[in-house]
Amino acid sequence: MIEDDIEVVYRVRAESPGLDARIEALLLEQTVELGREALRTAYVREHFVGRLISAEPAGAGEFRVRLAQPADAAAGNPAQLLNVLFGNCSLQPDVELEDMRIPPALVRVLGGPRFGTEGLRRLTGVRGRALTASVLKPMGLSVAETAALCRTLALSGLDVVKDDHGLADHSYCPFAERVRVCLAATADAARTTGRRTLYVPNLIGSPATVLRQAREAKELGAEAVLVAPMLLGLPFFNEFVLGLGRPVLAHPAFGGAQRIAPAGLLGRLFPLFGADAVIYPNAGGRFSYSRDVCAAIARALQAPAAGIAPALPVPAGGMRVENVASVLGCFGADAMLLVGGSLLESPDPETLLRRCREFVEAVHAFPYRP
Amino acid sequence: MIEDDIEVVYRVRAESPGLDARIEALLLEQTVELGREALRTAYVREHFVGRLISAEPAGAGEFRVRLAQPADAAAGNPAQLLNVLFGNCSLQPDVELEDMRIPPALVRVLGGPRFGTEGLRRLTGVRGRALTASVLKPMGLSVAETAALCRTLALSGLDVVKDDHGLADHSYCPFAERVRVCLAATADAARTTGRRTLYVPNLIGSPATVLRQAREAKELGAEAVLVAPMLLGLPFFNEFVLGLGRPVLAHPAFGGAQRIAPAGLLGRLFPLFGADAVIYPNAGGRFSYSRDVCAAIARALQAPAAGIAPALPVPAGGMRVENVASVLGCFGADAMLLVGGSLLESPDPETLLRRCREFVEAVHAFPYRP
Repeated sequence: MIEDDIEVVYRVRAESPGLDARIEALLLEQTVELGREALRTAYVREHFVGRLISAEPAGAGEFRVRLAQPADAAAGNPAQLLNVLFGNCSLQPDVELEDMRIPPALVRVLGGPRFGTEGLRRLTGVRGRALTASVLKPMGLSVAETAALCRTLALSGLDVVKDDHGLADHSYCPFAERVRVCLAATADAARTTGRRTLYVPNLIGSPATVLRQAREAKELGAEAVLVAPMLLGLPFFNEFVLGLGRPVLAHPAFGGAQRIAPAGLLGRLFPLFGADAVIYPNAGGRFSYSRDVCAAIARALQAPAAGIAPALPVPAGGMRVENVASVLGCFGADAMLLVGGSLLESPDPETLLRRCREFVEAVHAFPYRP
Repeated sequence: MIEDDIEVVYRVRAESPGLDARIEALLLEQTVELGREALRTAYVREHFVGRLISAEPAGAGEFRVRLAQPADAAAGNPAQLLNVLFGNCSLQPDVELEDMRIPPALVRVLGGPRFGTEGLRRLTGVRGRALTASVLKPMGLSVAETAALCRTLALSGLDVVKDDHGLADHSYCPFAERVRVCLAATADAARTTGRRTLYVPNLIGSPATVLRQAREAKELGAEAVLVAPMLLGLPFFNEFVLGLGRPVLAHPAFGGAQRIAPAGLLGRLFPLFGADAVIYPNAGGRFSYSRDVCAAIARALQAPAAGIAPALPVPAGGMRVENVASVLGCFGADAMLLVGGSLLESPDPETLLRRCREFVEAVHAFPYRP
């Protein structure tokens, strides 16, 4: 028996007169899925029907509804937890999942980030400043071209170079080959720079494929991996990181439009299920998150609930060297800045190296508050 | 090299003057993720940049945009296919994934329904009419109470009784116990009715849990299973059904609000990834799908693309005995009607049995067109 309740916050579009009935329906939908009059036993009524904590106006025609659901309904099962949070009501367009508080006993089952911000700082040796990262793309580069790009990026002094999340096990650039040459490229660059860039390969596929890629990556010496939890499915993601023994960067692909508030999905659920660093589309890029949403994601990652290690926010998407200072002003030192497209705009390696160095220097030179 | 392209249809909110640029950005976002000017090699430009097939107005301020993307981008990988279809652009609120056509070589990798409508008809022995189904709920019933409910439902002559999708491995009603007593209950009822109801247990959790439950269910004699593909993750779902050897009913939980059109997600992707029957919230219930959307889901399942077996539409949610005829008029004989809450409204077993029999008789008596 898990004592504490699961606290769930929804934004519900409703008219005031119908609000009570809408809340009652939402409350029952997520566990018993029947009206109270159809609940046959006292045990069900007492143990599987949650309760309303509060409902308050949240803008025109919207209410912020806070429910307590019995933790037992989740049965210590990551998929069933998602079911209780947003199973059936994800099908109802008047409901958005906004936030959740998971009781400690369930947090222990899921584990949260195993390495988190501290583990990634230890791994990269970066203290007192934000981390810098870029990305290997586009899809379609050969093994040799990928290696050359990786070496150039590493020579610029970036802390992290990650695969694009669309790099799979393509015939023209097989997974194991790519990992091998990129690790070699970062080792080679380190002989020049004196500091090794962390190369983070992308794992993607069904569980058997991802587990095989993880095994290969470890054998080749990769020290962290990238996955997209919503593509893989959150329950597999959780099982996977439990056995991985490496930090995991989480990519938001396939997850942004789930009608879960970005701070709820990327800021709470991703780390709860085990992400050590979470990539998200930063404000001002080619995606749509506002500055407030991005700040809320970062806050949730940097200052998580008790029992969950802080994880690293990784603002990305459309960022430019020119706005590094404003981004750092928003997120502070405990962040990893991921700049991709704007660095890779020019196919010329000289230009690329110079731009990357400018980016790295801007992040290093920023006056972080202690 | 896969020759045929992946055809993807999006609904895009855009102003006419900006449409060309928006389409170009969407096209590049889903594979190379860089502007054309940054594409370094001819190989990338020729093999990983898709093309616009058509763009036509689709209501006020919206366009239906049909793209061809290179099948090679998906690398024969179910997760990477989702990435190409709706990875990054799922984060962009002006885009909805509406439909897709998958080239035959990729369809063969994914497999589609292994049993489909024909397999479920063979398993249940039902020909020439729609199938009838109901559900074991609410969560919180003990093993004995679940068995009693299952027996009552089976005595009414229903073709299928399924677990609620929220039934996990709860301590008060453990998975294996539940499956054992429900199979016994349907066998017992069959001695009275002369026909065995198919009991379909719900499997839920991370892959290790789901695989263990599937093994237990098979050993106990279960002949079909229920899962929620979006909770499990579509790539695991696909890997799972490939090895299962049993028909799979797919539940839509956690998937409805993905900003994929319901007919695209439930009507195309679910069967492509292996669902043999697909449950969806029918029009008029406590969910929001319109009659047209429900008809489109059913059409996609009943008349799939070449190489994909027909799968059974399972309209559910808020249906009542009184509107069976209108539902059958819409979907015809190749459907399974799932009635839950309205049958279970009364906790009295006598009333329940009578109501179920009325439902079963209404489905049997409907004048199906040959």
